[in-house]
Amino acid sequence: MSRATSPGGFGEEKLARAALTYLAEPGDPALGALLGICPPAEVLAAIRADMLPRTGPGCGDTPASRAALGRALGRWRVRLPGLPDDEGIAGACRGGISLVCPGDDEWPAALDQLGQARPYALWRRGNANLRFACARSVAMVGSRAASGYGGHVAGEIAADLGERGWAVVSGGAYGIDAAAHRGALAAEAITVAVLACGVDYPYPAGHADLFQAIAAQGLVISEWPPGRHPARTRFLVRNRVIAALACGTVIVEAGERSGALNTARHAADLGKPLMAVPGPVTSAQSAGCHRIIREWGATCVTRAGDIIEMLSPLGVPDALAPGDGPEPADFSPWAARPAEPGPSGSAPPGPGSGPCRDDLDADSARVLDALPARGGAGTSTIAVTAGVDLDTVLRCLGRLAGYGFIERGAGGWRLRRPTRPGPGRPGG
Amino acid sequence: MSRATSPGGFGEEKLARAALTYLAEPGDPALGALLGICPPAEVLAAIRADMLPRTGPGCGDTPASRAALGRALGRWRVRLPGLPDDEGIAGACRGGISLVCPGDDEWPAALDQLGQARPYALWRRGNANLRFACARSVAMVGSRAASGYGGHVAGEIAADLGERGWAVVSGGAYGIDAAAHRGALAAEAITVAVLACGVDYPYPAGHADLFQAIAAQGLVISEWPPGRHPARTRFLVRNRVIAALACGTVIVEAGERSGALNTARHAADLGKPLMAVPGPVTSAQSAGCHRIIREWGATCVTRAGDIIEMLSPLGVPDALAPGDGPEPADFSPWAARPAEPGPSGSAPPGPGSGPCRDDLDADSARVLDALPARGGAGTSTIAVTAGVDLDTVLRCLGRLAGYGFIERGAGGWRLRRPTRPGPGRPGG
Repeated sequence: MSRATSPGGFGEEKLARAALTYLAEPGDPALGALLGICPPAEVLAAIRADMLPRTGPGCGDTPASRAALGRALGRWRVRLPGLPDDEGIAGACRGGISLVCPGDDEWPAALDQLGQARPYALWRRGNANLRFACARSVAMVGSRAASGYGGHVAGEIAADLGERGWAVVSGGAYGIDAAAHRGALAAEAITVAVLACGVDYPYPAGHADLFQAIAAQGLVISEWPPGRHPARTRFLVRNRVIAALACGTVIVEAGERSGALNTARHAADLGKPLMAVPGPVTSAQSAGCHRIIREWGATCVTRAGDIIEMLSPLGVPDALAPGDGPEPADFSPWAARPAEPGPSGSAPPGPGSGPCRDDLDADSARVLDALPARGGAGTSTIAVTAGVDLDTVLRCLGRLAGYGFIERGAGGWRLRRPTRPGPGRPGG
Repeated sequence: MSRATSPGGFGEEKLARAALTYLAEPGDPALGALLGICPPAEVLAAIRADMLPRTGPGCGDTPASRAALGRALGRWRVRLPGLPDDEGIAGACRGGISLVCPGDDEWPAALDQLGQARPYALWRRGNANLRFACARSVAMVGSRAASGYGGHVAGEIAADLGERGWAVVSGGAYGIDAAAHRGALAAEAITVAVLACGVDYPYPAGHADLFQAIAAQGLVISEWPPGRHPARTRFLVRNRVIAALACGTVIVEAGERSGALNTARHAADLGKPLMAVPGPVTSAQSAGCHRIIREWGATCVTRAGDIIEMLSPLGVPDALAPGDGPEPADFSPWAARPAEPGPSGSAPPGPGSGPCRDDLDADSARVLDALPARGGAGTSTIAVTAGVDLDTVLRCLGRLAGYGFIERGAGGWRLRRPTRPGPGRPGG
């Protein structure tokens, strides 16, 4: 295999990572350790050649760990006959499906917190940018056998989070997961379904339409390659990705043995905010929520505002969650000059040391201009007026609100009246 | 007034304290400070004579505090014309009404935690011993406008606490308070109503029968003298006594501005365990509970077991809560010889280093003998068989369970089968 671009525009490393998602189960500690010291293409070549690759500290550097590596090699080679050729792998990227790898612009740095358990790559299907979607996101998961109460509350809170510019990450299952996704969709917000099977594999089958709608407005992602079936253990492996992607995790209804508590455990282990919505003590579906509030120190949250307060402790919606790695260049245009006064010398219209209008990036300026001079407008109306996609408008609205340009009222988003003379509306 | 016994068997100090409950509102900081340095009779004499009593550090030792004391004297003298004479005060003790004062055997040492805000005395009506009742007690308070859910949960948890030998302290109001008292009564357990009016004053009027039932099986107590009306501010002053009397406080339903949160605040300020029962986030009646869980660190509890675990962290029901002062001599017969082996040399039948049967106090031995050889029996049946009152039987059952002699099952209390040869049943 050459270093040149491979079939379908895949580079060598990306093709190798794609192949590894076919050969190894996600979260395989041997592969995670190996990828920490070897390029993916070298690992793939070693599997194909049935030869141990060069090893290093913590991976194959002792007789015992070399033996473990040998066993892993055998495990991965079992699936070699079913591995599509390079053209086949590249061909899996059709119908909106593509692959995101570590190092890509769209790769969420939050996943790097998983260390050696970091996904080898993520298959994605949909229209949103994964990194931007997850930068302001809440994982909301819970019982499949949700009560009417739980479904109602999950949907309401998810919609409210969505209206405030937060994406909702969940697992695409029946019950709470579905209510969370649907609530976000109803608010025209981004939602991310993290599956334990291929992104083209509708499981549960009854959610085929839901996944279609999520892909149209957000993202369906998976560590497993297209076509791969779900399995019981895969759900548990998948849960760490839900917890790692989002800024915090909220459990809405969970029985004492609910799988949602596994996601909660991952969030806690990652040091991320863990929250739970209480319910009637007479309901077994809320028992797990009450237990993690009492015993794990999960925060008791009852509405979107509580959740946002937990994740934005200073009261200003952060474009990127703390610890989410370096900001993409186009994400925070002011990062490069934090202390510099605005070129027009005018006072910022909002709280704190935000920029003046002339400092705004092009998308935010267009969104700001799209707001009516009087009254409010809904997110979708603003997107149409500004001529930007929903992903962008949500991001810009959150940023503009954070800098005090706009606020959200009963009639939707509206301009915030400056309390002192500010610059006029720019001409563009 | 002589140092001899006054009318009705009241000593001079007790008569003075009784008179002070007529003259001053409970929690008056000037009177609290004065009682810290002067005998009650001297304070009463000073009020009658309209002369400042001798003062000391923190009370009347500066011009400003002497001026405050002078104003307080005027305040208390206003009620002198309505003060019954000594015979009248003593005569208030009829129909089961009596007075408990600091220093009395029945005075709960827990109240001394209130410092200068300690009640001057407590009027009581009922059949239980206040100190014993409160030694293993839970304050359960909440919204007057309780939902069906809240009333149900309060009643169930109170009954379960009662069945496990815990007394329930509450405020006698409509809603959660009433459900808590009734739950305890249904379990034939002790319950204590702390009123903000005279113990003979049925407020709310619809609770006259309830207070009758509470007095018959537990206690109705008040800092205000018989005949005194309730008032809005009195409920708030009263709340500190509810929080101080019990080992911990549980809030079951409270709106955002519920008076129950005032009791919760007192419990937290006293450093006592504060707990709250969650409910649907869609219910305004649970909003206060969720808030104190989230913001005050109240423990989320869902059943009696959670509450007992909070109050008995070592898993053994404690006869007296930590910090509740010295134990009454008849309360824990083993306190005097903690490390000494049982005289018969036999191994204790239960967990830990409990006593053997021969070490039991007379009441506990009678209660233990009243348990059937096979199967279980209810609390009242055991009381009748043993020939001891309900107060005593509840105390003894808790102690016997704590030492592993008995356990509670579906059929009531039953003997726990020893896992190794133990002593035979004593002949008594």
